[in-house]
Amino acid sequence: MNPAKATSKGHISAPTEKAVETVGVGLLGRGTVGTAFVEQFDAAAKTTAARVGRLPVLTGVLRRSEGDFDQILQDSEVIVELMGGDAHPTLDYVEAALSEGRSVVTANKQLVAKHGERLSGMARKNGVQFRYEAAMAVAVPIIPVLTAHLRVTAIDRIAGIVNGTTNFILQEMATTNASFDDALARAQDLGFAEPDPSDDVNGKDAAAKMAILARLAFGTAVERRDVAREGIENIDPDDLVYAKEFGLALKLLGSAERHGDSLSVRVFPCFVSDRDPLANVQDALNAVTIDTPALGQITMSGAGAGARPTAEIVLNDVASAIAGHGKTEYVGVKENLTVDNRGLRSCFYIHLIVSDEPGVLASVADCLGEHDISIESAVQRGLGDKARLNLVTHECDEEAFWEALLDISKLRVTRSDPRAIRVRA
Amino acid sequence: MNPAKATSKGHISAPTEKAVETVGVGLLGRGTVGTAFVEQFDAAAKTTAARVGRLPVLTGVLRRSEGDFDQILQDSEVIVELMGGDAHPTLDYVEAALSEGRSVVTANKQLVAKHGERLSGMARKNGVQFRYEAAMAVAVPIIPVLTAHLRVTAIDRIAGIVNGTTNFILQEMATTNASFDDALARAQDLGFAEPDPSDDVNGKDAAAKMAILARLAFGTAVERRDVAREGIENIDPDDLVYAKEFGLALKLLGSAERHGDSLSVRVFPCFVSDRDPLANVQDALNAVTIDTPALGQITMSGAGAGARPTAEIVLNDVASAIAGHGKTEYVGVKENLTVDNRGLRSCFYIHLIVSDEPGVLASVADCLGEHDISIESAVQRGLGDKARLNLVTHECDEEAFWEALLDISKLRVTRSDPRAIRVRA
Repeated sequence: MNPAKATSKGHISAPTEKAVETVGVGLLGRGTVGTAFVEQFDAAAKTTAARVGRLPVLTGVLRRSEGDFDQILQDSEVIVELMGGDAHPTLDYVEAALSEGRSVVTANKQLVAKHGERLSGMARKNGVQFRYEAAMAVAVPIIPVLTAHLRVTAIDRIAGIVNGTTNFILQEMATTNASFDDALARAQDLGFAEPDPSDDVNGKDAAAKMAILARLAFGTAVERRDVAREGIENIDPDDLVYAKEFGLALKLLGSAERHGDSLSVRVFPCFVSDRDPLANVQDALNAVTIDTPALGQITMSGAGAGARPTAEIVLNDVASAIAGHGKTEYVGVKENLTVDNRGLRSCFYIHLIVSDEPGVLASVADCLGEHDISIESAVQRGLGDKARLNLVTHECDEEAFWEALLDISKLRVTRSDPRAIRVRA
Repeated sequence: MNPAKATSKGHISAPTEKAVETVGVGLLGRGTVGTAFVEQFDAAAKTTAARVGRLPVLTGVLRRSEGDFDQILQDSEVIVELMGGDAHPTLDYVEAALSEGRSVVTANKQLVAKHGERLSGMARKNGVQFRYEAAMAVAVPIIPVLTAHLRVTAIDRIAGIVNGTTNFILQEMATTNASFDDALARAQDLGFAEPDPSDDVNGKDAAAKMAILARLAFGTAVERRDVAREGIENIDPDDLVYAKEFGLALKLLGSAERHGDSLSVRVFPCFVSDRDPLANVQDALNAVTIDTPALGQITMSGAGAGARPTAEIVLNDVASAIAGHGKTEYVGVKENLTVDNRGLRSCFYIHLIVSDEPGVLASVADCLGEHDISIESAVQRGLGDKARLNLVTHECDEEAFWEALLDISKLRVTRSDPRAIRVRA
């Protein structure tokens, strides 16, 4: 399509008989998401006109080789930022747009995690909107649920699978017993992982999303560096197989949880029971569970990435910006919980190789018991003169657990470094 | 709490130092949900004041024995209807409130299914809101997702478990092999079913919700009587056991699906695969899947009933009404698809008792083949001189299927009336 020339307040004739007011929309960046945005623009614009009463018109596209930002800004009521980056020039453009009274829609999670608080404030001050639904988990409707459906509902915990690449890799490891490296290579072949997948597999991508999520759910400023983080690079595929005996599936979990006046925010590999709504989240989908005292648990899942879904959610945000919807939504800091990832409790899965002799399970159980940790399930399998021992504990103090595990590693009967992975209660 | 006396535009001193503008909220009805609403009111009001900037104050409660509607109306900016009923006097009160420029929040699905279109129109005309999030599937965030997150996204199908009572009964039958009657009795003991469960188990409750859902998702007027409906009263628990061999779980499914210019809307028992996001929906939860070409499938689940969750969602709707949020949301008929439940396609599960002799499976397969129906899976088990035969077909024309089943019932080898249940593809 050719971007039509129209000022932000112009009128053009719509396909129906009566003239429809137009709204200029300027696009910054035309990578894969930007290209999908342009392709899907006309269909969404037509529906926006029918449902909101104003017709979005693309005023221009800014690329390295093309376009003039000042001209696009002048012609547009809404600026769509799909350039990426959380510093110059992206940040300058977004700030300029907001201070000139333009609403901004972005899919850029790093920008939102780093500057979202301040940019939302600028938008409020200027009576416009800063919208970033596609920056979170794309098709998973986190923002409307937290800001409208649960506008006044107290939340205890929000947790979920917010990185599709790692969900695919862990599923591949569990179903084929592939190593992490082989599963990653397959994810790359199928387009579920980038050529450089570091920020996905080390949990940085999920941590940026959890910072935004925690801020929205708990009204507390959370910086990316506040989010405790463990990746999946060191997961042994055998543990995924052994844990099936306990009805457990491994996920890279992001979690933000209130404990009195403090808030834990972290990303870590975690087993979930096969009855858990997150257990059945397939392929590269994202999913989030929200626990509230008044409503119990709400679960939502959907596509968490991909050019076409991302562009579609951006187009919905454009329509919402045009509808004037949600001007009061992004309310910034409301509570001041202290972010603190210490003193937490969890259940744990343990893998051990032990010598196959009487009393082994008892001595391991003693080590745990000395730290007030009790065993929920145990499986022992003979391997010649050794045995594999897998345990799942009841919920316990995490620091006590790591001390107990150190003690277990020093037992005479222990033949391998113990491995441990959290289990969602 | 004692309802404070305050006019709809009054000011009282909030617990913080500065005065906060108050908003009068009047309650009609004080059954179980109304009682929970009053209990949860203060906490929600405090959060509403913090997030929206205005403090809701309960102006009065109308019961048979208490309260004066005209006085409550005069003192209130928002009227909350928790009386039930879709005719006099409920409808009169709601109409009076909207025409006097009061927003109305309700949890009454029968009222919305019967009069929602017209009441939404009255609200728009008077510049106020008619909100009914709690009438749909309570904690499942259907309305914000359909009206904001997917404001301009084309939807192919919306389907789900919108009745918790039947979900619990079917789960009980599947896990304990209980008869329908025994499972229902247990649901009643546990409070998951009403003393008179007719409208739950015959699908009428789900049909009313699907009428509202279809209208929201497809912008097409759908009346309750347009919804094709089958209940779960005649389900044989054996079929739930046999279907486990195919990895299938039974759900009472509501479905609204676009086929070109027509829309099918129906409620029916349906098997889903254990990989289906609806398979793992436990107990009395509700869940909905939305299929879209641009985003793939979005799934949401949560509490679908209960006094406390219903009251909580009503309180969120009150806060949204006060925030002035969503004035443009309930846009009425947008498309005019024709509601038509004929000419549909489905996969089917079949249960047959046949004589145990050579060629039986072949003659059944022939009957199906003559109607262009192919078999996806089959299990045959000997029972002395008879055999049980379970089949799952590939997707086929439904009318052709029922003809084929009639032919099968007339085969010489057939020893029982065939039973058939749809399977979600």
